Amino acid sequence: MNKVAVVMGSTSDLPVMQEAIDILKSFDIETVVDIVSAHRTPDKLADFGKSAHKEGIAVIIAGAGGAAHLPGMLAAYSPLPVIGVPVKSSNSIDGWDSVLSILQMPGGVPVATVALNGAKNAGILAAQILGSQHEHILKKVQAYKSNLQDKVTQGAREVQSRFNS
Amino acid sequence: MNKVAVVMGSTSDLPVMQEAIDILKSFDIETVVDIVSAHRTPDKLADFGKSAHKEGIAVIIAGAGGAAHLPGMLAAYSPLPVIGVPVKSSNSIDGWDSVLSILQMPGGVPVATVALNGAKNAGILAAQILGSQHEHILKKVQAYKSNLQDKVTQGAREVQSRFNS
Amino acid sequence: MNKVAVVMGSTSDLPVMQEAIDILKSFDIETVVDIVSAHRTPDKLADFGKSAHKEGIAVIIAGAGGAAHLPGMLAAYSPLPVIGVPVKSSNSIDGWDSVLSILQMPGGVPVATVALNGAKNAGILAAQILGSQHEHILKKVQAYKSNLQDKVTQGAREVQSRFNS
Amino acid sequence: MNKVAVVMGSTSDLPVMQEAIDILKSFDIETVVDIVSAHRTPDKLADFGKSAHKEGIAVIIAGAGGAAHLPGMLAAYSPLPVIGVPVKSSNSIDGWDSVLSILQMPGGVPVATVALNGAKNAGILAAQILGSQHEHILKKVQAYKSNLQDKVTQGAREVQSRFNS
Amino acid sequence: MNKVAVVMGSTSDLPVMQEAIDILKSFDIETVVDIVSAHRTPDKLADFGKSAHKEGIAVIIAGAGGAAHLPGMLAAYSPLPVIGVPVKSSNSIDGWDSVLSILQMPGGVPVATVALNGAKNAGILAAQILGSQHEHILKKVQAYKSNLQDKVTQGAREVQSRFNS
Amino acid sequence: MNKVAVVMGSTSDLPVMQEAIDILKSFDIETVVDIVSAHRTPDKLADFGKSAHKEGIAVIIAGAGGAAHLPGMLAAYSPLPVIGVPVKSSNSIDGWDSVLSILQMPGGVPVATVALNGAKNAGILAAQILGSQHEHILKKVQAYKSNLQDKVTQGAREVQSRFNS
Amino acid sequence: MNKVAVVMGSTSDLPVMQEAIDILKSFDIETVVDIVSAHRTPDKLADFGKSAHKEGIAVIIAGAGGAAHLPGMLAAYSPLPVIGVPVKSSNSIDGWDSVLSILQMPGGVPVATVALNGAKNAGILAAQILGSQHEHILKKVQAYKSNLQDKVTQGAREVQSRFNS
Amino acid sequence: MNKVAVVMGSTSDLPVMQEAIDILKSFDIETVVDIVSAHRTPDKLADFGKSAHKEGIAVIIAGAGGAAHLPGMLAAYSPLPVIGVPVKSSNSIDGWDSVLSILQMPGGVPVATVALNGAKNAGILAAQILGSQHEHILKKVQAYKSNLQDKVTQGAREVQSRFNS
Repeated sequence: MNKVAVVMGSTSDLPVMQEAIDILKSFDIETVVDIVSAHRTPDKLADFGKSAHKEGIAVIIAGAGGAAHLPGMLAAYSPLPVIGVPVKSSNSIDGWDSVLSILQMPGGVPVATVALNGAKNAGILAAQILGSQHEHILKKVQAYKSNLQDKVTQGAREVQSRFNS
Repeated sequence: MNKVAVVMGSTSDLPVMQEAIDILKSFDIETVVDIVSAHRTPDKLADFGKSAHKEGIAVIIAGAGGAAHLPGMLAAYSPLPVIGVPVKSSNSIDGWDSVLSILQMPGGVPVATVALNGAKNAGILAAQILGSQHEHILKKVQAYKSNLQDKVTQGAREVQSRFNS
Repeated sequence: MNKVAVVMGSTSDLPVMQEAIDILKSFDIETVVDIVSAHRTPDKLADFGKSAHKEGIAVIIAGAGGAAHLPGMLAAYSPLPVIGVPVKSSNSIDGWDSVLSILQMPGGVPVATVALNGAKNAGILAAQILGSQHEHILKKVQAYKSNLQDKVTQGAREVQSRFNS
Repeated sequence: MNKVAVVMGSTSDLPVMQEAIDILKSFDIETVVDIVSAHRTPDKLADFGKSAHKEGIAVIIAGAGGAAHLPGMLAAYSPLPVIGVPVKSSNSIDGWDSVLSILQMPGGVPVATVALNGAKNAGILAAQILGSQHEHILKKVQAYKSNLQDKVTQGAREVQSRFNS
Repeated sequence: MNKVAVVMGSTSDLPVMQEAIDILKSFDIETVVDIVSAHRTPDKLADFGKSAHKEGIAVIIAGAGGAAHLPGMLAAYSPLPVIGVPVKSSNSIDGWDSVLSILQMPGGVPVATVALNGAKNAGILAAQILGSQHEHILKKVQAYKSNLQDKVTQGAREVQSRFNS
Repeated sequence: MNKVAVVMGSTSDLPVMQEAIDILKSFDIETVVDIVSAHRTPDKLADFGKSAHKEGIAVIIAGAGGAAHLPGMLAAYSPLPVIGVPVKSSNSIDGWDSVLSILQMPGGVPVATVALNGAKNAGILAAQILGSQHEHILKKVQAYKSNLQDKVTQGAREVQSRFNS
Repeated sequence: MNKVAVVMGSTSDLPVMQEAIDILKSFDIETVVDIVSAHRTPDKLADFGKSAHKEGIAVIIAGAGGAAHLPGMLAAYSPLPVIGVPVKSSNSIDGWDSVLSILQMPGGVPVATVALNGAKNAGILAAQILGSQHEHILKKVQAYKSNLQDKVTQGAREVQSRFNS
Repeated sequence: MNKVAVVMGSTSDLPVMQEAIDILKSFDIETVVDIVSAHRTPDKLADFGKSAHKEGIAVIIAGAGGAAHLPGMLAAYSPLPVIGVPVKSSNSIDGWDSVLSILQMPGGVPVATVALNGAKNAGILAAQILGSQHEHILKKVQAYKSNLQDKVTQGAREVQSRFNS
């Protein structure tokens, strides 16, 4: 099981969720993308949640806004780790609704919640989960972190030369 | 269809939800009570939501705490009006999680949300929904409101005689 | 009693509340629209609340922003179910004021609250309330939900073909 | 018009509102106390609001909790200044509901809001309003403030002698 | 004492506070306008607070943003009623800072707080305070409220003719 | 790498974090427990973060309260998935501080956040992460979920027999 | 200038502020303690703020609750660094009022704010300020931090021996 | 030790943090600027924190957004006073995340927190810290405050002549 599923409640979530897809592709991790709405296609959600682990999926990333029930309901159906991305949709109350609907799951059914609109981090977290068991993915995560560090170091050099002459 | 269903996510919600059951009984409205957990018994939830309107139920009252997905998921499955009761559970963040998880439903799938721990009002609202079509229930609602008024009037009299002598 | 009233505190609420009117029309439900201000025309509010059930109205939808007292005061006067729509007005504190002023009604006088600016859902909820007693409206609600599902399915197909080739 | 009315939505608000009554009595200001519920006795509220200024009342103090509509509705009916006291009732969401329901009044209909449970300050504010036109009450307010100062000075002396020997 | 002072912490508050000045002028109430900064001109604040009641001022309106100390400090120095206007300044945390800094005054020193950016209501409240003792101002307040009602009635007529044909 | 580390900022977090340890033991997953304080032992934190993946640890669970920096700093140092448990410590502002300090990580460095005080769910999530690669742990997760369902079913039976006779 | 002043708005703040006094004494830093109320003794506040730097005081620690104006007003009068301690008083709205009243100071007049009820940290911060210029105090701060580390290390040893046998 | 360090987590924080640099330069205080990311360059952070006091730095100003760990981690490593600037970054939840991540430090490790985006005040606070020991800097702070006062006085004159003719 080495695939990652990226599902979202609506096509309007795609601009945010695209970042998860992109980062996973940059790690060469096979990704399955789908639209699954907890409130409009609940039966599809149930099927998806029940079968994901049988189809080679190891981690499910689910993004939704407002009263966001998609990540939690997938966690109800699936034995796999589910990563929830709170999406700041229009008419959201500043994002608090999606954050709390995803984060505050009851005992027994966790959702691994990332920051508001944090789809990129959801992708990285999925890679780390796979990396904890697969050396070649772990190395990619380490290279990614090393690259982040290099960019900061370069920015630091520019700022230093500008201000600390 | 004249029955009201009162469902909750856990037996620990019963002390709050009991108030809905009691007020409905005081209005002589037939009530069906059940425990249905969105996260622990999702298949039962789906069955309940799909069949309620076929079993004489007119209104569903659903109470849950934390990341409360029960009311919204019942609304996803059922064409009936669903009344959501945010329950202030332990480890809730002051109740904000259950309020926002129930209230902020996306366009197309409403939940009629009442106040935090407002199970009594959920019962009254269900009675008003039935009363809007059934004269004898409307009259009971009117009598209930009249009784509320009498109690305030009596309290007012006591306060007046104590302070305004 | 099969009419739905859609009232709002000010003409500035009309762009939000229009969605309730439109969805009710799409369900062929007779709708009465009015401006009733709790704070500027309190006597009209009292008259409206006291007489609505005598004029064939089954459900009242009331939208207001800020310290939104219109839905709760209509619920004080009327035995009918009142659906409250918190409107995010200018100078609102992010919508929290209208949400809490409408949601947190005291025991005895419920308001069925929907999401911030959730006028469309208020209209659907009114249709569900009528549908719980009228088969032909219930069927329209079911058709509406089925249509929502179809749209998600179509969006899913597009996303799948784009990403899962 | 030199009387102050102290009204509240329920006898359960009396422990908080008593402080307004007590401080007004200590200023020898004539006080009228009553229970008026916006949601349970709306007609009484309308009568009270319309007639207060004809009965020698100069200022109305109104306390209520939750979705607190009493102060705002009195302000809708009366041309007098209305002071609102947000009461932290049980099942309140930490008092935010009553604070925002009273404070965030729309343009045209102000409520002079004091702190959560701040009934004593409501009484002092009423005295200040009368004192702005009546020299003998202004002097009492000044004496009260002078007394507050003396108490702090005394506390300061004790703390100084304990820590700054 | 029949003048109203309108003071603010900075000229940047003038666009908001102008509404208080305008409404007071429309009531023919004499108005004194000044810039007084709690944090930049604290001595001027002290002088202003101590002398206002000696210079014919009956009510002080004070507007400020962020950690807004101006209204509360004027209330500390003056025996007059102080109306506080929370101003939503840039870098404010959504206005919560100014609202809470003004509203939550300790026992003994009230500030009559109005809504966020509610300067118009501050002016009306000042007029109501004067009107509670001066019949001719009370009548102007009543006329103002009557005018508000007429505007709503006209808006209602337009909406009715558009939707309820 | 099949061990799970459970670290916390202080022994005062142990009553909350114990639930993670217990559930992991019930899944027969090898667990390493330690106290690591971001603010008091930052060097130990750095060592722990840098070496965990070399010592057979696959997942790090980190709990902390207030300005909770432990989970995020471990994520800075380690390529492994880090699960953060916001602990509601004394003097916390209702838990919001620890929730936001853990959840809102910047792009590139995710923390898998669970509910406030949700240590049990952190343990289950760690098991799910291992289970996504190890069939025998996946089966234990499935059995756990099945057991949760049984308990709800039993509770439902009791409630049904009590209310629906 | 090597003294630290610890002032608070009321003797009721002493149980919280005592921690600042104690930690400063443990660093052998001369401490001056006083009660100064922004709202009840504003003239004393002005005198204190204007003269502190002339009396050998280097740092002012000020604690207050609710609409906490003491730290900000001292910062208005004094050129010295002012450390503000938000105190969670009774009737506070969960401490948010004192936190925001102290933190959100306008440009030009900073207050160094510490955590809610964080008087101990205010004392340590004052020591660090003095230590940045006085080697012997810097060494005490370093010793204090070293001691904190030792306590964590000891707690870690106990936990390790209990769980990681 | 008379230098002030201004560090930030990312070059994207520079527009906000520039104000700290500018004000320090206007006070002729030597300033060291750097980019140090808690989550991307944690080792650099550790080095910076451990060595700052050995390199003539007296005060560290650190700005960061979201789950802002930079100020707190510098305070963990350094015995110097650390001033934290919460930066309102994109995807922040209205700034609450950075405010609480910086403010709510545990006992023993303070961060002197200033207002959201309050980098100018951070610079002034650093000057005040140095000024508490260096007369010539204290005088500059006093001149700065005097200048602030002059600007308000000038604005007041303009407003007075416009409105109080």
